[in-house]
Amino acid sequence: MKNGLNNNPIGMFDSGLGGLTVLKELVKILPSENIIYFGDTARVPYGTKSENAVRNFSRQITKFLIGHNVKLILVACNTASALALNDIKKIAKEIPVIGVIKSGVRAAVSETVNKKIGIIGTPATIKSESYQNAVKIFNKKIKIVQQPCPLFVPLVEEGWIYGKIMKDIAKIYLHPLKKAGCDVVILGCTHYPIIKEIIQEVVGEKIKLIDSAEEVSKDVKKILSNKGLIRTANSRGNLKFYVSDAPDKFSKLSKIFLGKIISGVKKVSIE
Amino acid sequence: MKNGLNNNPIGMFDSGLGGLTVLKELVKILPSENIIYFGDTARVPYGTKSENAVRNFSRQITKFLIGHNVKLILVACNTASALALNDIKKIAKEIPVIGVIKSGVRAAVSETVNKKIGIIGTPATIKSESYQNAVKIFNKKIKIVQQPCPLFVPLVEEGWIYGKIMKDIAKIYLHPLKKAGCDVVILGCTHYPIIKEIIQEVVGEKIKLIDSAEEVSKDVKKILSNKGLIRTANSRGNLKFYVSDAPDKFSKLSKIFLGKIISGVKKVSIE
Repeated sequence: MKNGLNNNPIGMFDSGLGGLTVLKELVKILPSENIIYFGDTARVPYGTKSENAVRNFSRQITKFLIGHNVKLILVACNTASALALNDIKKIAKEIPVIGVIKSGVRAAVSETVNKKIGIIGTPATIKSESYQNAVKIFNKKIKIVQQPCPLFVPLVEEGWIYGKIMKDIAKIYLHPLKKAGCDVVILGCTHYPIIKEIIQEVVGEKIKLIDSAEEVSKDVKKILSNKGLIRTANSRGNLKFYVSDAPDKFSKLSKIFLGKIISGVKKVSIE
Repeated sequence: MKNGLNNNPIGMFDSGLGGLTVLKELVKILPSENIIYFGDTARVPYGTKSENAVRNFSRQITKFLIGHNVKLILVACNTASALALNDIKKIAKEIPVIGVIKSGVRAAVSETVNKKIGIIGTPATIKSESYQNAVKIFNKKIKIVQQPCPLFVPLVEEGWIYGKIMKDIAKIYLHPLKKAGCDVVILGCTHYPIIKEIIQEVVGEKIKLIDSAEEVSKDVKKILSNKGLIRTANSRGNLKFYVSDAPDKFSKLSKIFLGKIISGVKKVSIE
């Protein structure tokens, strides 16, 4: 690799705001890295769109990130990781590409004792069976229980992340996973780390929750390290935010995800 | 008007499935009319998008409908009616255009006795203040209480249209309207007629609910009648359905909205 590539940014994207939970973990682990975040807020949510639409959107965003000379592409969106990772890799060529799914699955497989893993996510992620297939690559004997939770994302974006309604809905969604006796549950959507505590309370302390945001951030560090691409400067990295619609709303809602409001969000056209 | 225009279809659109509640009323009132329905399922929901995005999407769809020789355009989406009606009229030229907002407001203004009207809708519809402004055109002295209900649409699409969770959430959203003493509440989103009964139960029998789908369908009949454009054939009209993504999902979910599954939904590119 050429000298100077170390200062190039990490590119990451999500259908909207959810990927900010991944950004939060990434900045914790790699505080000196420059990062470009793209949120496809004009077309959010991906979880209810068709496979072809999600693949098309992902290809467009990949080209945008490559145009910003990124040194690695992190697909922070579970739906895009499930449906479009190969399309993204084809376009990215020698730029390493990593999605949230594989990292979460590897951690889950190493944590489960009774070989029963639960997976929660958006309807599209669950329907794609990508988590299920990824688990099978590691260990074919593991039993998988999947549960789509379509109301979690709108509840988080409404800010109803505590309280009775959140808990009542969580009980309905999570009951089948408890009943099946899973000892590990993967949070298969980037919005879910925000409601991790309430999910833990509902499933009980005996079930270990896997936060894909943490796991994928550790893997990004490993990849950059292996390729000699870690930014060595002692200064904190620059963070740049781009969206396809409504930058003000993105700024405002970023408080739920990052605990602080992001300013300077730029709107760009992606087509 | 030229002879033969009577057989041309009515064009209608929505961001997704919600407009099917309007279609249902329209078919009740005008069973002989040919109708083309466009659902922008690739970009649904509009309620969380920016004004510019919604205006742009609406212009694209208007051109698509005009290409199908429609004799009237019914904007079945509250958000598009709120933000893009003028843009649509400019493109439609001599083709009459009608949105769901004005019809609902006219009915509400004529029903209220104590001059306090409540309005519920998506965050974008409420934020646009279009209902509020439309009420003021009819009567400046009417007091308006607005309430965004962002979880109603995902709850309906999850099919959780009865039961405790729906009712608990409805209680939270509708409490301010009861407290303010409104005697009329406008259902300012096309998804809401589906949960009309539970809303009525929560607000109580003394509050009259206005269903914009019914009101706008009556107005479409009036416009066509005044222009001599009613289809006079005795046969039932043809219904055609187009979407920008996931026709199978549209077919499946149409059961919640129409009580029956629509077949033959076509996917088209709109840009």
